[in-house]
Parts: sequence; C-alpha cells; structure tokens
Amino acid sequence: MVVVLQNNLSEKELENIKKKIRKLGNIEIREVKGDKYRILGLIGDTSSLDQKEITCMSGVEKVMHVQEPFKKANRILNPQNSVIDILGNKIGGKKLSIIAGPCSVESEEQIVEIAKNVKSGGASFLRGGAYKPRTSPYSFQGLKSEGLELLKIARKETKLPIVTEIMSPKLVEKFQEDVDVIQVGARNMQNFDLLKELGKTNKPILLKRGLSATIEELLMSAEYIMSEGNENVILCERGIRTFEKYTRNTLDLSAIPAIKKLSHLPVIVDPSHAAGLWWMVEPLTKAAIAVGADGIIVEVHNDPENAKCDGAQSITPKRFNKLMNDLKDIATAVGREI
Amino acid sequence: MVVVLQNNLSEKELENIKKKIRKLGNIEIREVKGDKYRILGLIGDTSSLDQKEITCMSGVEKVMHVQEPFKKANRILNPQNSVIDILGNKIGGKKLSIIAGPCSVESEEQIVEIAKNVKSGGASFLRGGAYKPRTSPYSFQGLKSEGLELLKIARKETKLPIVTEIMSPKLVEKFQEDVDVIQVGARNMQNFDLLKELGKTNKPILLKRGLSATIEELLMSAEYIMSEGNENVILCERGIRTFEKYTRNTLDLSAIPAIKKLSHLPVIVDPSHAAGLWWMVEPLTKAAIAVGADGIIVEVHNDPENAKCDGAQSITPKRFNKLMNDLKDIATAVGREI
Amino acid sequence: MVVVLQNNLSEKELENIKKKIRKLGNIEIREVKGDKYRILGLIGDTSSLDQKEITCMSGVEKVMHVQEPFKKANRILNPQNSVIDILGNKIGGKKLSIIAGPCSVESEEQIVEIAKNVKSGGASFLRGGAYKPRTSPYSFQGLKSEGLELLKIARKETKLPIVTEIMSPKLVEKFQEDVDVIQVGARNMQNFDLLKELGKTNKPILLKRGLSATIEELLMSAEYIMSEGNENVILCERGIRTFEKYTRNTLDLSAIPAIKKLSHLPVIVDPSHAAGLWWMVEPLTKAAIAVGADGIIVEVHNDPENAKCDGAQSITPKRFNKLMNDLKDIATAVGREI
Amino acid sequence: MVVVLQNNLSEKELENIKKKIRKLGNIEIREVKGDKYRILGLIGDTSSLDQKEITCMSGVEKVMHVQEPFKKANRILNPQNSVIDILGNKIGGKKLSIIAGPCSVESEEQIVEIAKNVKSGGASFLRGGAYKPRTSPYSFQGLKSEGLELLKIARKETKLPIVTEIMSPKLVEKFQEDVDVIQVGARNMQNFDLLKELGKTNKPILLKRGLSATIEELLMSAEYIMSEGNENVILCERGIRTFEKYTRNTLDLSAIPAIKKLSHLPVIVDPSHAAGLWWMVEPLTKAAIAVGADGIIVEVHNDPENAKCDGAQSITPKRFNKLMNDLKDIATAVGREI
Repeated sequence: MVVVLQNNLSEKELENIKKKIRKLGNIEIREVKGDKYRILGLIGDTSSLDQKEITCMSGVEKVMHVQEPFKKANRILNPQNSVIDILGNKIGGKKLSIIAGPCSVESEEQIVEIAKNVKSGGASFLRGGAYKPRTSPYSFQGLKSEGLELLKIARKETKLPIVTEIMSPKLVEKFQEDVDVIQVGARNMQNFDLLKELGKTNKPILLKRGLSATIEELLMSAEYIMSEGNENVILCERGIRTFEKYTRNTLDLSAIPAIKKLSHLPVIVDPSHAAGLWWMVEPLTKAAIAVGADGIIVEVHNDPENAKCDGAQSITPKRFNKLMNDLKDIATAVGREI
Repeated sequence: MVVVLQNNLSEKELENIKKKIRKLGNIEIREVKGDKYRILGLIGDTSSLDQKEITCMSGVEKVMHVQEPFKKANRILNPQNSVIDILGNKIGGKKLSIIAGPCSVESEEQIVEIAKNVKSGGASFLRGGAYKPRTSPYSFQGLKSEGLELLKIARKETKLPIVTEIMSPKLVEKFQEDVDVIQVGARNMQNFDLLKELGKTNKPILLKRGLSATIEELLMSAEYIMSEGNENVILCERGIRTFEKYTRNTLDLSAIPAIKKLSHLPVIVDPSHAAGLWWMVEPLTKAAIAVGADGIIVEVHNDPENAKCDGAQSITPKRFNKLMNDLKDIATAVGREI
Repeated sequence: MVVVLQNNLSEKELENIKKKIRKLGNIEIREVKGDKYRILGLIGDTSSLDQKEITCMSGVEKVMHVQEPFKKANRILNPQNSVIDILGNKIGGKKLSIIAGPCSVESEEQIVEIAKNVKSGGASFLRGGAYKPRTSPYSFQGLKSEGLELLKIARKETKLPIVTEIMSPKLVEKFQEDVDVIQVGARNMQNFDLLKELGKTNKPILLKRGLSATIEELLMSAEYIMSEGNENVILCERGIRTFEKYTRNTLDLSAIPAIKKLSHLPVIVDPSHAAGLWWMVEPLTKAAIAVGADGIIVEVHNDPENAKCDGAQSITPKRFNKLMNDLKDIATAVGREI
Repeated sequence: MVVVLQNNLSEKELENIKKKIRKLGNIEIREVKGDKYRILGLIGDTSSLDQKEITCMSGVEKVMHVQEPFKKANRILNPQNSVIDILGNKIGGKKLSIIAGPCSVESEEQIVEIAKNVKSGGASFLRGGAYKPRTSPYSFQGLKSEGLELLKIARKETKLPIVTEIMSPKLVEKFQEDVDVIQVGARNMQNFDLLKELGKTNKPILLKRGLSATIEELLMSAEYIMSEGNENVILCERGIRTFEKYTRNTLDLSAIPAIKKLSHLPVIVDPSHAAGLWWMVEPLTKAAIAVGADGIIVEVHNDPENAKCDGAQSITPKRFNKLMNDLKDIATAVGREI
C-alpha cells in the first residue's frame, strides 16, 4: 500500500501518522520524500488494512493499494486453476461447462421436456428459476418451493445437476438440501449476509457479477464466501450497466482474461441476460468461448413466445443444438473441448 | 403501452399477437399502420402487463411504455406530497429533516456524545451503523446487536429517533422493535425478499438508491414495500456509479426534481457517501437543499481520524453546527425551514 | 414516431399540435386515446423530423422514435453487406481484414521493418500514427507530415495500403493524396466539420466509435460522411468508457452483431486500444472474430518497451504471427477466412 | 509518480528499468521493497513523464501518478482564483456571471429581442448558436456566418458581450474578430488541433466538459489551450453520460468543488443541456450556485415551442426573470452577488 502525504507536515504530525498505521497491523513503513509530496510505502500483509481508516488521517492526501485485497481467491496464492466437481461434472477443467434451461420453471412437462432437450443437445447442467427477482412486484415471482420440486423431478429424469437462484438467507438450508449449484444473482452480489451463510455450506456457488460491480468487487464477494470456508465458487460475467441501451447490459468479455489473471476460480458467461436478445446468444456464446471462459449459462425454452419471463432472450432447443455443434470447432481452436 | 410490429405480418399473425395481448389483462388495442412499421396502442391498466412477455412474441419489434410502471408511489394517483411522522418529527413537510450521526456505532460514549452534539446542532434524527455492509470480509462489520442497544441508549438520552441499516430479512422483527426508521442500503435496493418483509411492518423505511439503479427502478423498489401495505417510504439519493473517479460516486441531484415530479414520496440526500470526501459535504448539502430535497442524512463523528470506518467522509460536530447555520438562508430562499 | 400527449388537452390545443407537426414534413397522423395519455402515431418519412422540435411543443409528454434516424447507413434500404475495395484488398467480404502496425511512426527503419513483419504475418493493411491525439499537451504528438512520408516509404516497400488518423479538416486534402484509408479517431467521432469534409472525398474512412457514443450515434456519424456522397465507411468498435477500470475501456463486442443487424457497413474491432493491455490482445481478437467482426486493427511494435507511445498495448511481430496462425481455425468455424 | 514492479526481477533487470526511467527526464528514484512487490518512487517534475512509456517496460506491474499532470491550470502553482475580464464583465470574482440566450440564432428580431430580455433580467453575456453541432446531418445546422452577424447586431443593441460555439480550426480567425468568448462544445473537448489554435489567440475560451471526460481530462484540455499562451479559460460542467436516462445527461455538481480545489480557473454550470428539460433549469441553477459555481449559461427563448432546436430545454424570459430574482438570496447565502 502506498500512502501519499501532504508535503508541509511537521515531524510530529508525520510520526503521529506512522504510529497510527503501525497500530493497524504488522506493517513496516518506508518513506520517500518528493518535491511536492511525501510517500509512505507500507510493507507486510496489507490486505487486512482498511484503506479508509488511513485515508481519513489528517495529512494523508490519498492511499493507493498495490496488492489485491482478496486472498483466498487470489491466483498468487493458488496458481493452479480450481476445478469444481459436481456429481462428476467438472467446472474449470479442459471440458467446457454448459448450463442450460428456462428462465423460470413453469410446469413439470415444461421443465422435464427442456431438460431432456438440453441434455441431448450437450448440456451438463440444468438451470431454471424457482424464486425470481423481478423489478416489479406485480410481475410473476416464480413457482418458489414448488419450482424446486419440479427441478428435482427433472434431475431425476435426466441426471443433470440443477442450478437455481437463491434470494434469501432464510432458504439456505433448503437449497443446500435440494440444489446442486446455488446461484447468487447480480442484484445480490453484495448481499453480504447471504454470502456469509452460503460460505458455511459445502455447495458450489455460482456468483454472478453485479450490474455495477468492478472485477475486484466480484472477487471480494467470492472472498466473503471463501473466507467462511466454502471455496467452491464459480464466477459469472453477465453484462454490466453502461450508457448503451441497444442491449440490456454490456457484456464485458475482457473480464474473462482479467479474472483468469487475478484468480484461480472458474468463470463462465451468461450471454442471455447480458444482451436480453435471443439472436445475440449465438455470436456472444462463440465469443465467450473464444475469449477463454470455462463455460456458459444459457436460457433455452421450448416455447419462448409463451415463456413466463424473459422469453425474448431464450433460444429454442433446436437453435441450442445447432449452437452446441457450431461451438465444437471454436472450443478446439482454443484448446478446450465440449 | 406502445407495441411496434414488423410490417410484413400476415393478418393471421397480427390477430394472434392481439389475442395473446388481450389474454394478459383487461386491455383494449388500437392500431396504427405506418410505412415501415405497424403500431399497437394498448389502453387500460398496463402497469400490470409484463413488458417482457410482449417483447418475446414473434413479430414484435419493440415495446415502449408510456405510463410509469409504479402505482402506489405514483404522484398521478396521489398528487399531495406524503408527509411521514416519526415520533412527532415529520419528513416531507415544510421543515427540512436532518439525520446525522457516525458511520458506525463504536461505543456508548461515542454515540451518546455525538447524539448530543448533533441534537444541539439542529438534527432531528440520529443515524449510526450497527450492521455494516463492507466490501471486504476482513473489514470491521459493525457492533451488530450491541450497536442497536447503544443506539437505544443514545435515543433515551436525547429523544432523537434512531435510523439504522438492516441487511437481512432475519432481523426484520428485531429492527421493528428497536429502531424508528429502518434503512435499506444501496446494495440491498433490489433485495426483494427484504423489501417484501419490510412492507409487512408499519415502520418508516429509508430506501437508498442503488449504485446503478435508475430513478424508475428506485420507485419500483419503493413499490415493493408499498404493495405489501407499508406506505411510509422515504427515498434517498446517495450517488450513482459512473466513469468519474475523483469522487467515490456521482451525486445525481437532478434525481430530486425528477422524483418530486414522478412521486409523492419524500426524498432526501446523502452527501457523505456520495462523494466520500468530508470537504465536499458542505457544498453538496447546500446544493441538495437548493435543488429541493426534503432533508439530508449526513455523517458526523467527534473524532473522524480514528473512526472505525469512513472517517474520510465524516465532518466534526463543529463543522456540522456551522453547516446547519449556513443552511438557514438557503432553506428560506427555497421556501423551507430548518 | 410516436408522440405521447397529456390527457387534459382541449380540442384546440390538440389541433394546434397536429398542425405544427404537419408543417414539419409530409406526415400523416393517427390518434390513439388511452386512459391517462393520448398517443399520436406519425406516418411517413420521419427520419427528417427533428424529435426535439416536437418534444418542446406544449402538451407533449414525450416522443419515441420507431424508425432508425439513419438512412444511407441503414440495412433496411441496402440489405446486402457493403464491401469496400482498397487497392485490391476488400473489407467486408468473406476474407477477414487485418490492419496492423505501430501506434506511432517513429523512424524509417522502424516503420519499414514492422510493415515487412506484419505483411509476412498475414496483415493486408499497415497502420501507424503520424498525427497523434494525446491527453497531455506535453506528450509526444507524432512525427506529423514526416510520419506520412515514412508511411509512404513503407507502402512502397511492402505494397500494403496505409491507414492513419486525421485530426483536422485542414489536412483533408493532404490525407486524400497520401493515404489509403483515413482514420477518424474516437475523440473526433462527432467532429462534424471533419466528417462533412471527409464526406466530400472518395477515400475509405475508418470511423472509430467514441468513448461514450451509442451505436446509433456511431451510425449517425457514418451518415454524416455518407450524406455528403462518400459511402466508403468502415466502422470500428474500440471500447467504451464505463465504471470498470481494470481495462482502459470496456470492449463492447455485442456492438458487432447489433451493427450487423442495423447497417450494411463493414465493422472491425480494435483490441489494442480497448483494453490497453498487450496480453489481452490475443483473447479479445479471437472473441472479435468469433462474434462476427469483419477484421481487426491491432498494434504491433518490434520493440514495445521503447515505443514512443502505448507500448503497453502493443504485441511483438512474433506474437502477431502466432495470433494470425491461431485465428485460422476460429475464422473457419464462423465461415470466414484469413 | 509511483512505479510498482514485479518482485522476481534480477538486479540487472531492475537497473535496466531505472536507467530507462532516468533517460525520460530529470528524475530521482527512491526504492521500497515489499513482500510481493517492489516500489519505485520517482521524484522531480514528473508531469512531463509519459506514464504509458513506463507502463510498457518489462517488469513494471503498474504506474500510479501522485502529482496532477496539469501545470498551468493547477491551483498549487497559482493559489489565487483567476478572474477573467471581458469588456468589463468579470468571470470568477464575487459577482456571479449569467450567460443567457437562445440555443440557435434564428433571426435578427429573435436574437435582439431575447438579448434585450435577458439583459433586463440580469444577464451579463448573450449566448446563441451560429454553428450548431447536431447528431443528425439532416437537422438544422445553424445560420453560420449569418448567425454571427446577427449576434453582432444584438451586441451593438445591448452592449452584452457574445458567447458562441466554434466547431472548426478553420474559423478561429473569424471568431477571434467577431466574438467575445469562444465556446468549445462538449463534443470538441478533445479536438486538440482546435484547442491548440485557440491557445494562440487572446480570446477567453469557454471550455465545456465532454460527455465522458473526467475532471482531470477537462483540466488537461484547458492545459492544451494554456500551454500555447492563452490563459483565459473558463470551464463549464454540463452533464456527463451515465446509465440514467430520465435526464439527457447527469449533471455532476460535485465537479464544481473538485475543480475549485484542483484549479484556479473559473467554472460555470449549464443546467439547460445537462437535463434537457426546461422545468429542471430552475432547481439545477439554484443548486449550481449553492455548490459554488461562478455562474451559469442558460438557454432562454422567447418562443420555446417554435424554437429551431432544443426548445424543450429553454425557459421563457419571464421564467428567467423570476429565476434571477430567486437566485439573489441563495447567492448571498454563499457569499456571492448577482
């Protein structure tokens, strides 16, 4: 950590600042005096320092961190890619992970049919929303616990592990029992109480990047889960909010190589929610694999026109099959398989 | 709601779309045929329509909403400003509401002293964090329930109603008992489970705008609370995330007149979290009052340099007193009092 | 175009608005009366209407456009992809266009050597900055006209057409004579005087998207050039400004399928300026081709560490060769060739 | 400037980096060795260093600047507020500067009438667009040189100095002769060729912040003008582009105290273009004065409904008069006069 000081400090003020910093942790201080500023270089485990506590000391101009503030998620401390095994399906290895299914679970027929479809197309996980976060309280909020039951039926029929979103810490126990991968949605990426409770389970957590979260903040949210003991975290880029309105969000594919450099955790892409347009799913999926993602989570619906929510971003099983087929050569070209 | 259709639809396809739309609600349809597009005007209570369900119908190019999607929060249905009474202190009337206190509750001495300070300076509410949302799991997370107890002591000493943040639906019952105004932080603005549970209480809710939430989304989150029965919602602008990094967030003061036009709910401004810089609190507070806010929530700490969090954005009681004094003339100039 | 009116207008006010609208162009008006609003559907060539002139009429609540405001750039009017031929090299056809070279032209040895390198690696155009837009007036501003001369020497040696950036309308004549493709940089995307003058030439124009320009605005800037008679416009996505600071800009790859849907113009990607990090050039180039771009413009420098500007985002000729090689399979997978 | 190095560098690599840095300028280097990183503190006049040239050196992880990169615009070197005198009217002193007039000059009657109106309301400058930057080539582009002539007539009639926008370096000479304050619009904030030519004149330049320009970039653009010799620069905040679409742009009022801290240059606010909504002009103007701006530039039109452009954001002379009146108390409250 680098602390920039005003240049007109007295020796006493300077000593005072140093004393306060040393109280915050086992930190050594080196000093560099410039023309207009004085700089302190802090040495030691600065990830436990609270940057804000130093910023507010009188005489401190600004504080810049050199080391990343995350530890367990940091590639420096764990150079090998993490591979997460879910009922024999691995996320993060050479084989790409394909998670597919409808936005919402609507009925047994629907979810079982789609599950069979996506399995035969090449998916290795079934997604489907039971508890749905919706902007309007007047929109369909999901089938809730009934939806979970229907997902379990689909899992039984297809052997596909199920991935679904949790919205409340009150449901952690239930999800731990029923679900194979627990998804934390973009809106809850900094719902820290939820993250902490999920950190106490042993379930793989699919953590989606918040609409306005930096890559560092995403990794800090992973750290919340990991610091409680659960290191099975899968990250997901799903678009960020920008001024551009043609697409619902702006898919930030540069985040994939960035995350791969910073962290050992697997990272997948959600091309459906990013654009919000079904006809963009195909090119964005190809780009996601080409850029180095470990897989995708994609919305597939057997009747998008009558889907209960987000039909506009769902593709049909037929298109999904074709997409899986088209992906093979791209996967090979980047040293992966499907 | 206006539905734009492709121009090459057959009569049968057109009829099919109209039939589906009519099934969604008690809606009348008017049709306008242009050169390149065909337009359907939907008439009736379109706020219960799910725009996405129409967007995904085949032949639909785009859907534009004309009427706002919120009802209970809408000024059209409730032209008078809402005024919320909290132990005799009103928010939303002619008198400006000043909520002041430390970022975190740290000790009995600290919170009681600051409470007395801000009361004598002119505050009518005491703020203070007991449960703290922090980006890093390694940062101080607040004194939690002990913090609530200390707030209650400070309330007893000063008669100031207390305002503090809730982070989990598990704590709604406790907060309902202990707290006078329950704050929902920016990160939880779309924690819909929490909003719904708060909607079942009768407590005033201070709802902060999310970092990347539009004004419409903020009002839809208020609608979540109100649709469950609790209409005592106070909105708060506290800065949005933009490309500019000199300030922590960009305070969007245009949101105040916008919200005043769209909604009858009171709206206040948080100048401390917006900029993240104590020396900006004074000019931003003045601007907030000049632009028409119903009050402010501001961080005051008796020892900012040693504050447990966010000291850099806290002002001293002395500066707070001066600010309250300076505000008087501006309040008068815009027809308010302090 | 759809005009939303307040519902409390008198017949006279309504007639007044209609009369004014009819005066703006050859427009028919259809009316739809809803519960809370009244809607006018405008029929005819609304792209010449000025939305703002209607917005300010008293009684008008908002104006929403249905048809895109660009004409010559619109795919509706020109469904076939435009292919631009530059000295026998086509941009926009099956074969991908690779434009490569240094950020700045520094010396004859440098530019000739890099030109030979990138040609043997597979590039079909040479890029190189002679006039450099720099944030600071104290940074190196390019070799200017001497740089153009050096580019011409490199062209003579390698037969590669040259692509370089123009910054002032005063230089249009000179560039028209010296250069094969004239580049308009992101900062000048809405330098309308420059665009108009370029529209009067017959040179292919490489138009880069502005840092905060929407896709529609990019197409409107292309329209500026095309409306003056020059239809040889190549678009370029090079990253937009968002809150994320890990990369210099956020590469918006969704813009490629969006532009392909809206327009017939070719579109390429600049992976070097987007991220500002050389090690991201490889994955982002792969993603750009996978998503459907017609080519790339990439910075290659034989000595990045001593480059006069932007060395941090340049790759070596060796890496460039490898990248071209790796791209082949991805190109084939998406039906293109290299 | 602080240079962060990888920790695994050999002595030789380290020496190599230091040698290269020393070659860039008269710089001393101090070294701090941490656990995971090594840090170099550069001492001396680092504002002439090109951060990018250091970033690309092999072994360099990142470069952080401590000192601001602008010099002539920097308050450190010129602690007193700059006051600019234009025909006896001062910008930057105790008296607030009010610049008012129509978006476009439309006719002699129009501009003379509005000029008289705003003068009697309290304006000390007349604004009016002669050359108009418009997103669409099919929109009204201004009366051009004829517009300048009409402005001169209005100046003669009212003695108000005139402020109007330049779009091309080709017109600098003409504007220097005809105009009192030359405005550079948001889209041309980084049109560096234009800035340099304006730097060679002695005219006051009103420099508007670009839609996606940081405060630092705005000051660097001022530096372009000042480094050529013209120090008469007036800055203008006019809204930045964010995800929020209720207002056309998001007015960043925090930029005012930020600029006041960083620079000695005067700074005004444009409430009309920021929101794009006439009914927001009044509250935003009040907020601008309360936050510490040196004045405003505001659109006033005698017939907004029939204005040739941007009527939706113009206020009538009557509203302008009332606003000027209402501003008095706020001005006094913040120690200014009107």
